[in-house]
Amino acid sequence: VSFPTVEFILHKRDGNSHTPEDIRAFCRAYLEGDIPDYQAAAWLMAVYFNGLDVAERAALTDATVHSGETLELSALELPKVDKHSTGGVGDKTSLVLVPLLASLDVCVPMMSGRGLGHTGGTLDKLEAIPGMRVELPLADYERILHECHGAFMAQTAKMAPLDKKLYALRDVTGTVESIGLITASIIGKKATEDLDGLVIDCKFGSGAFMKTLNDARALARALVDTAKTLGIRTTALLTNMHEPLGAFIGNAVEVREALHMLRHEPVEQRLREVTLTLATEMYRLAYPEQSETDARARLEQQLANGAAYEHMLRILAAQGVPKNVLNGLPDSLPVASHTIPIRATRSGLVHSIATSRLGRLLARLRAGRLTLEDTIDPVVGLHSHVTVGSRVRAGEPLGVLHVREDIDPSELAECFVIADDTPTGHPLIAERIT
Amino acid sequence: VSFPTVEFILHKRDGNSHTPEDIRAFCRAYLEGDIPDYQAAAWLMAVYFNGLDVAERAALTDATVHSGETLELSALELPKVDKHSTGGVGDKTSLVLVPLLASLDVCVPMMSGRGLGHTGGTLDKLEAIPGMRVELPLADYERILHECHGAFMAQTAKMAPLDKKLYALRDVTGTVESIGLITASIIGKKATEDLDGLVIDCKFGSGAFMKTLNDARALARALVDTAKTLGIRTTALLTNMHEPLGAFIGNAVEVREALHMLRHEPVEQRLREVTLTLATEMYRLAYPEQSETDARARLEQQLANGAAYEHMLRILAAQGVPKNVLNGLPDSLPVASHTIPIRATRSGLVHSIATSRLGRLLARLRAGRLTLEDTIDPVVGLHSHVTVGSRVRAGEPLGVLHVREDIDPSELAECFVIADDTPTGHPLIAERIT
Repeated sequence: VSFPTVEFILHKRDGNSHTPEDIRAFCRAYLEGDIPDYQAAAWLMAVYFNGLDVAERAALTDATVHSGETLELSALELPKVDKHSTGGVGDKTSLVLVPLLASLDVCVPMMSGRGLGHTGGTLDKLEAIPGMRVELPLADYERILHECHGAFMAQTAKMAPLDKKLYALRDVTGTVESIGLITASIIGKKATEDLDGLVIDCKFGSGAFMKTLNDARALARALVDTAKTLGIRTTALLTNMHEPLGAFIGNAVEVREALHMLRHEPVEQRLREVTLTLATEMYRLAYPEQSETDARARLEQQLANGAAYEHMLRILAAQGVPKNVLNGLPDSLPVASHTIPIRATRSGLVHSIATSRLGRLLARLRAGRLTLEDTIDPVVGLHSHVTVGSRVRAGEPLGVLHVREDIDPSELAECFVIADDTPTGHPLIAERIT
Repeated sequence: VSFPTVEFILHKRDGNSHTPEDIRAFCRAYLEGDIPDYQAAAWLMAVYFNGLDVAERAALTDATVHSGETLELSALELPKVDKHSTGGVGDKTSLVLVPLLASLDVCVPMMSGRGLGHTGGTLDKLEAIPGMRVELPLADYERILHECHGAFMAQTAKMAPLDKKLYALRDVTGTVESIGLITASIIGKKATEDLDGLVIDCKFGSGAFMKTLNDARALARALVDTAKTLGIRTTALLTNMHEPLGAFIGNAVEVREALHMLRHEPVEQRLREVTLTLATEMYRLAYPEQSETDARARLEQQLANGAAYEHMLRILAAQGVPKNVLNGLPDSLPVASHTIPIRATRSGLVHSIATSRLGRLLARLRAGRLTLEDTIDPVVGLHSHVTVGSRVRAGEPLGVLHVREDIDPSELAECFVIADDTPTGHPLIAERIT
């Protein structure tokens, strides 16, 4: 008997909930090509309007996980914990978290994506390191994870094919912005890693997908609840993306900043705090008996004693970075030929930063991608000297642009809004959701 | 430049109105195959949820009319008026209206459909007449309309192809039940007839698509308003479909009943009243200077003096019915070999009739179609002896089934609900909407 697709669509259109069995049968038939895209598209739009309840999200997520190949790490007797960020500007915490946690007997199979629009992608950043390979067969990742307990992974072509097929359709049918579908997509991909724990870094603010704390909270709640239905211990932090995270935005420059932090060198305070708070959450999901204070102290120690940085070098070596590059880091990273100061047009306080716009302008300069076909120039980036609340004088550099040619930075300067009055503050880490 | 389909979908998804230009551009691109079905399906579902306003309906209707060939009747100096019914059980008014109005200098290019589900189709009924051809090229219809002023037409393959393509997609994507889309489909097809006037017979009740008077009123309002945007004078009547219209349901039996009425022989009173009221509306749309009383009197006269019946024979002859069949009517219609009484299981009043169910049960016996592939047996039908409110005694026949073999009529009997209390009455013609 074929799947009764029209009835399935009508059921959701009319505001009813699907049974888990129906969700699974729909997903199976769709993936096998028995349900045409036009019927799936109508269902997706009905879901956009009527949503998916917790049980439906759980079923769709589970179907996503089991639609393709999954990591096989059962021989590894370590807790497996990952982090997912909803995306922002200057967010390089993953580059620190993987070696830091892996150096403390936590397996971190960090599966990341590429940048698009205003947001950067961990894989793009890592590829700024000469020789670094992030697109490996699953068996190679499994070997690296057994050896190093950490790896920087791209989703393989055979992982979560249901999500690939559904996402491609959502992208062209105006059905991306559905909490239920977003949740199943994010958790379904992450859960292919066979995780024990997951920390969600759910961004809010002008540089995030969720502009308001309320929207971010709703997404975080859905992500946490759905991950839990798969037996994954999950915590979410709502973190501030009203301005970029850290002093650098780009690819090589962000790797450099992450290496600084791993080498216990001074880095921008907000980046350090968010990274260590995420790390503490991850560590305590792996080892729940640890107190927050102890966990944090152990993590700080791994940065101070060089163990986290050493671990980073091991992972990079395993993923193809040659010795001469490793020994020369961070100076073996590619560097831009031109540095162009971005100057304040008036004196005052940095009142706000148009973070999405800043990200998109940098993407246009090839620090990121505006379309999937764009190629990235790893050396392009921005070194910001200010954060929201900084006092600046007219003509003083707000930051320095790293590029390959002379460029008028005035559009970038406009992203930094300078005013006389004190800006509204946003908490760096607004909430913790469990 | 290609049409920005994703933005178009998002615009409707987010509750905005399209411009007429955008609707037309979308329709053109979709019909030309430049927009894939999966994007059209997502848009249709967004329309299901967010609706189409009057200007959007007008644009979609206009795009439907002009997507294919249209009737060319400009040389015919008569007012052109048609009637559309939203579908019911036992509804054969079209068979009377076409010759009746055509006999009074009204051109009636009656384009009808086929039956599906519980509703019968005018074309199926007519094909019970030996030799009758309803699928003719457009030029033949134009010739017949010039000669006879009335014709029974099927939509040609080249008429309103946009509606054919969109309807096929709506049918499999759960997006049929949208007032905006229904309106554009109905009026878009009718308006290919180059009409001056249109009467909508909008049914309400258990045998109609719109079960309640409120829903029927909303649909009628939308149909009238949309037809008016195309410059067609339009009136709607909300008529009772809580029980079948007339005493016969089927194909040959309904033709016979219509011929009885055209020959001024006694027919079920409700059928006669609805038909004459629709006819009066049509006549007054054609000749607005006529009073209702005069119009009705002229129509009654055409039935009484045999002119309407003579006109019917002319039209049938023009559409292929041979002389021997015409001269022998109604006895030249095919007749069933078996007549099976349907008996009341108790005494009391006919409290209600499960009209949709009755229609579907008869379709299962091949008086209609449950799927598009089903073939119709013209002789199968039901002759009902009762209407809602009739007093019956246990064992007395409620009606007679006409079939080709012996059949247990108990399921059909169950459609007639007999009780002791007086049934709730519904007005035969509840409202007139202009």
